[in-house]
Amino acid sequence: MAEIENVNIDQVLEQVKSALSEGDWDHVVALLEPLRPPDQATVFEDLDLKDQIDLLPRLPPRESADILEELEEQKAAEIATQLDTQNLAKIVDYMEPDEAADLLKDISPDQALQVLAEISEPTEVIPLLSYSDESAGGMMTSVEFDLQADMTVDQAIDYLRTKSPDEEQIYYLFVVDSSDHLVGVVSLRQLVISQPGTKIHDIMNTDVISIAAGADREEAARLMTRYDLLALPVVDENRCLVGMITYDDSFDVLEDEATEDIFRLGGVPEGAVTDIKIPVVMRSRLPWLALNLVTAMASAAVLSIFQGTIARAAVLAAFFPIVAGVTGSAATQTLTVTVRGLALGQINIAEALPVLGREILIGLLNGLSIGGLVAVIAILWKGPPILGAIVGAATLINMLAAGFAGVVVPVIIERLRIDPALASPILVTTTTDTLGYFVYLGLATALISLLV
Amino acid sequence: MAEIENVNIDQVLEQVKSALSEGDWDHVVALLEPLRPPDQATVFEDLDLKDQIDLLPRLPPRESADILEELEEQKAAEIATQLDTQNLAKIVDYMEPDEAADLLKDISPDQALQVLAEISEPTEVIPLLSYSDESAGGMMTSVEFDLQADMTVDQAIDYLRTKSPDEEQIYYLFVVDSSDHLVGVVSLRQLVISQPGTKIHDIMNTDVISIAAGADREEAARLMTRYDLLALPVVDENRCLVGMITYDDSFDVLEDEATEDIFRLGGVPEGAVTDIKIPVVMRSRLPWLALNLVTAMASAAVLSIFQGTIARAAVLAAFFPIVAGVTGSAATQTLTVTVRGLALGQINIAEALPVLGREILIGLLNGLSIGGLVAVIAILWKGPPILGAIVGAATLINMLAAGFAGVVVPVIIERLRIDPALASPILVTTTTDTLGYFVYLGLATALISLLV
Repeated sequence: MAEIENVNIDQVLEQVKSALSEGDWDHVVALLEPLRPPDQATVFEDLDLKDQIDLLPRLPPRESADILEELEEQKAAEIATQLDTQNLAKIVDYMEPDEAADLLKDISPDQALQVLAEISEPTEVIPLLSYSDESAGGMMTSVEFDLQADMTVDQAIDYLRTKSPDEEQIYYLFVVDSSDHLVGVVSLRQLVISQPGTKIHDIMNTDVISIAAGADREEAARLMTRYDLLALPVVDENRCLVGMITYDDSFDVLEDEATEDIFRLGGVPEGAVTDIKIPVVMRSRLPWLALNLVTAMASAAVLSIFQGTIARAAVLAAFFPIVAGVTGSAATQTLTVTVRGLALGQINIAEALPVLGREILIGLLNGLSIGGLVAVIAILWKGPPILGAIVGAATLINMLAAGFAGVVVPVIIERLRIDPALASPILVTTTTDTLGYFVYLGLATALISLLV
Repeated sequence: MAEIENVNIDQVLEQVKSALSEGDWDHVVALLEPLRPPDQATVFEDLDLKDQIDLLPRLPPRESADILEELEEQKAAEIATQLDTQNLAKIVDYMEPDEAADLLKDISPDQALQVLAEISEPTEVIPLLSYSDESAGGMMTSVEFDLQADMTVDQAIDYLRTKSPDEEQIYYLFVVDSSDHLVGVVSLRQLVISQPGTKIHDIMNTDVISIAAGADREEAARLMTRYDLLALPVVDENRCLVGMITYDDSFDVLEDEATEDIFRLGGVPEGAVTDIKIPVVMRSRLPWLALNLVTAMASAAVLSIFQGTIARAAVLAAFFPIVAGVTGSAATQTLTVTVRGLALGQINIAEALPVLGREILIGLLNGLSIGGLVAVIAILWKGPPILGAIVGAATLINMLAAGFAGVVVPVIIERLRIDPALASPILVTTTTDTLGYFVYLGLATALISLLV
């Protein structure tokens, strides 16, 4: 359906592998060159590490740079480490400054220094090395083209023709004063449709949205989405322009953050790609299961306390999956809506009270309907009306608790500045599990004389 | 941290509300006008419906159009329905064609026809009305500015100055032949840096990525992310250019799709915004809980079958949260990674076998470690080694099942062309729950003479 002409990636991959097996490097290069960078990277990723390392220096350095930029950062670093400094420097020369900085941060400091000594414009990369990956500064690239407010439109266009900057450098043309303070922005469109003699300061927009280099990268991405920005200027504490973030990186951050939330809600605290090594997977998942085991012991303890009741009325066990399980599902619904609302900024910690009221009301309605239904099922299936009453009441109480915990837990965790997607699911389901067993078996114990 | 000057939205909201209470409309308009559209919409959203309807016609129509574009589609339609046709048409005139079409699709056909009769360029909107919201055609806007291949660069720039199209119309300049077939693309940058007399066909890129109008909107968004496109041309079956999708809409679709997946994985099948009405919430969540109740009955039946065993050895109940619950968490981990991998295109149905192998191996390792640990806990806590052996073995077997079901269920569902995020969680946890109880209590029943 997508009309990408001439590209059957799987077919190219087969041809590349067959050319590799014959050692025909020229053919491999000829097969890869016509592809777009993301497609080149898809083929490249499927090759053996040894072939990848042999292939990169044989491709034109611009293509190799594109491929390294497309790969997962760890993978790119793994390959870069194996290249000799000269070949690597030639490739890094063609990388975007932000991508080059990310790569150099991931290889050994020794090798990074050697590469910096070899590349032609190290000053574009070096300032980017000092920012954390999680900050706006860590996402930004250098601004290689900016305007002065007292230029005229035709001077600006001449300057543009001379410098011929990359596409992504001129989504917006940032205007700075003589001390590099960000003072305005002009679009290329405005430049093209304005009279040649007009001064830039007469057409520039001075109301520029910018972000501090130390701000969180997710905040940068949110600003860019909210205001539909193609590029977001990054400034230092003196409001000097130090870089800019482009929309493609913002895309990537939002997708990464969504994946991170999905993984954390699903109990995979350190989300990672699919083809990662088993020991790494175990390190990311096993601690979560171990923690789950610890919290499950709380439910186990409750069940153990009421062992006598269970022995006397084993019929009670049949409804465990309902008083704990179904209310756990209701809690997960509330939790999911709350966590996503917090992530998208739709729910504000300060205004959580109406949300809490709503969810407790929903818990009441859920409890009345599901609890009522369960009570009827219990009576029809097992007989004693008192069993129905106990199951129904326990379900109702636990549904209210589910609504409460599903809002309160993530909001408190957010206030503690921990990601609510990370810690909430286990706390909330532990609450509904333990409380469900406790209320259900507690009621049954109190009414045991009526039950058996 | 985010440096948005002069904007304290909460403060503006307070001022707007106080001006409204005094009926001072001029002041309300003066407060709103300097804000950026997303901020105007944030303030506007917090007003009463009656005030919203009174306010819109008093704002300049361009501002009203921006606000309607920013609102949730249902909310915008609710307000539009209450405006009289003339006022609404004035506003729609300033909306982007795609936004106007979305709005007209959501109001009554009568009112939509009346608005179409009043607006100045109905032909830009009408063709957009025929596409489904879920298709690329439903996401696209009209192309109001395109080039012919035989123009020269200076003719193109003159044409651009004359037409003075909006920013988003010229992210890329699409080139068509005399029958409107899409034949190439030029960037504004290329136009500006090229020699004036150069023909467009000498500088255009003929290798344009496009999408069919009937393709899925998520596919359009994926293409735009993969190839970092600012705009994606949409073509009909004859490869004629019928519209284009801009990156801001692609942002929104990806965020919507991520939210949809998160909600579905969390058991909220019809994801919705936070401030939706309670009856709507119940309609979206209650059926899911009812379905959960039905599947929980499978576990209930297993527990009921083994009621005799539970009565004889009530100690068994203490480990229910582990043999069913903790393995359920392991299944959720596998499921989450599989579902997200399918959504991002990292996992391919045809190549699911290695993923399955990996996850079963992980299940084995999880089972050996968690199962072993549980066996030790059971023996230390409750005494009989045979209990430890039963608990440990059941955990191990169920961990293997968790790895199996966590991959096989979503892959089968994806092949059935249903969203795996929607149907998988309940099927997978039902499997691990029911199987967990069955294996555990089955083993215990077989070995009951050793246990009591």
